[in-house]
Amino acid sequence: MQGYPQPLERLIMQLQKLPTVGPKTAQRLAFFMLTLPDIETKQIAEAIMEVKENLSDCKICGTITDINPCHICSNPRRDPQIICVVEQPDDLWAIERTESHKGLYHVLGGVLSPLDGVGPDSLRIDTLFNRVHNGAVKEVILATNWDTEGQATALYLTQHLEQFQVSVTRIAYGIPVGGDLEYIDEVTLAKALEGRRAV
Amino acid sequence: MQGYPQPLERLIMQLQKLPTVGPKTAQRLAFFMLTLPDIETKQIAEAIMEVKENLSDCKICGTITDINPCHICSNPRRDPQIICVVEQPDDLWAIERTESHKGLYHVLGGVLSPLDGVGPDSLRIDTLFNRVHNGAVKEVILATNWDTEGQATALYLTQHLEQFQVSVTRIAYGIPVGGDLEYIDEVTLAKALEGRRAV
Repeated sequence: MQGYPQPLERLIMQLQKLPTVGPKTAQRLAFFMLTLPDIETKQIAEAIMEVKENLSDCKICGTITDINPCHICSNPRRDPQIICVVEQPDDLWAIERTESHKGLYHVLGGVLSPLDGVGPDSLRIDTLFNRVHNGAVKEVILATNWDTEGQATALYLTQHLEQFQVSVTRIAYGIPVGGDLEYIDEVTLAKALEGRRAV
Repeated sequence: MQGYPQPLERLIMQLQKLPTVGPKTAQRLAFFMLTLPDIETKQIAEAIMEVKENLSDCKICGTITDINPCHICSNPRRDPQIICVVEQPDDLWAIERTESHKGLYHVLGGVLSPLDGVGPDSLRIDTLFNRVHNGAVKEVILATNWDTEGQATALYLTQHLEQFQVSVTRIAYGIPVGGDLEYIDEVTLAKALEGRRAV
């Protein structure tokens, strides 16, 4: 039996590193790349190389950026008095897309997870405290996810931010806009009731 | 609103060239690559480059290969009297995995499809006729797919191979091994009845 030529076999193996890509998908993607013009596959390969070479963590907020400090931290029109704390850069971009936050960000780079060996020292928590301590920060918005680790991280930050003259808020949890009450899980519904506001 | 950094945006765009990869999947794959160690993403990028640089079409059978002629055509233990005709290299590898074909192959590089402007001249049909004409070929097995174009191509080849002293066969269509009669479509079932053999 004759298998795939070496370079093809290698590409199929490499593509399987990616999430949700198993042997069959890797094979399909590899065959597809064979049919692309040389210039197109070259562009894909170069984009993969460049993403690692030309990006670094912003030295202020910790997000992934091509300039340092990042576009947000170096933008004089953003309000430095409000810092929104998120777990990962993609959370930052998700909030940016809403165009509702005019302040700055702080990317923790993860959440507290003692079982996985992630303590406060593994995250960008010290630099957050430094920013709050040294800057004219008035509000810290905690936008970690609503799961065990995200909640624990929010709690930890709330407790430790008490020492600074700063108001700490948590983003609201409730019914998604357009959501149907009938299909909303109980925890979300309970949170929505708890967080009710006067109309 | 601040979007993704340029190199990340570019990678997300590039990944969307791949089949079944939309904006969300491209984003997920790109973020994942950011978390990989440099050496791992480099290996992926290199594998993509190499697959185009180091592979070519076998000058005899037309399959994709890293040596020319390919491992199969240059293997003296394969039977040169039997040529199995397939549409694409992946069909060849599918048959190779069965370890049931000891002869050689001929990869057409597609199927006849007049509506898409694919005529006999666009496929490796002339080289097939040359091989049959010049070699000691006794049997040509047509293993194109059982769809309109695959069938039309098989018919075209059958008619034109008549001029040579060669037996032309078509791979069998019928119930897949382990298949349940109840769930088999009528065309396959009709083919299975038509192709019945004495036990």
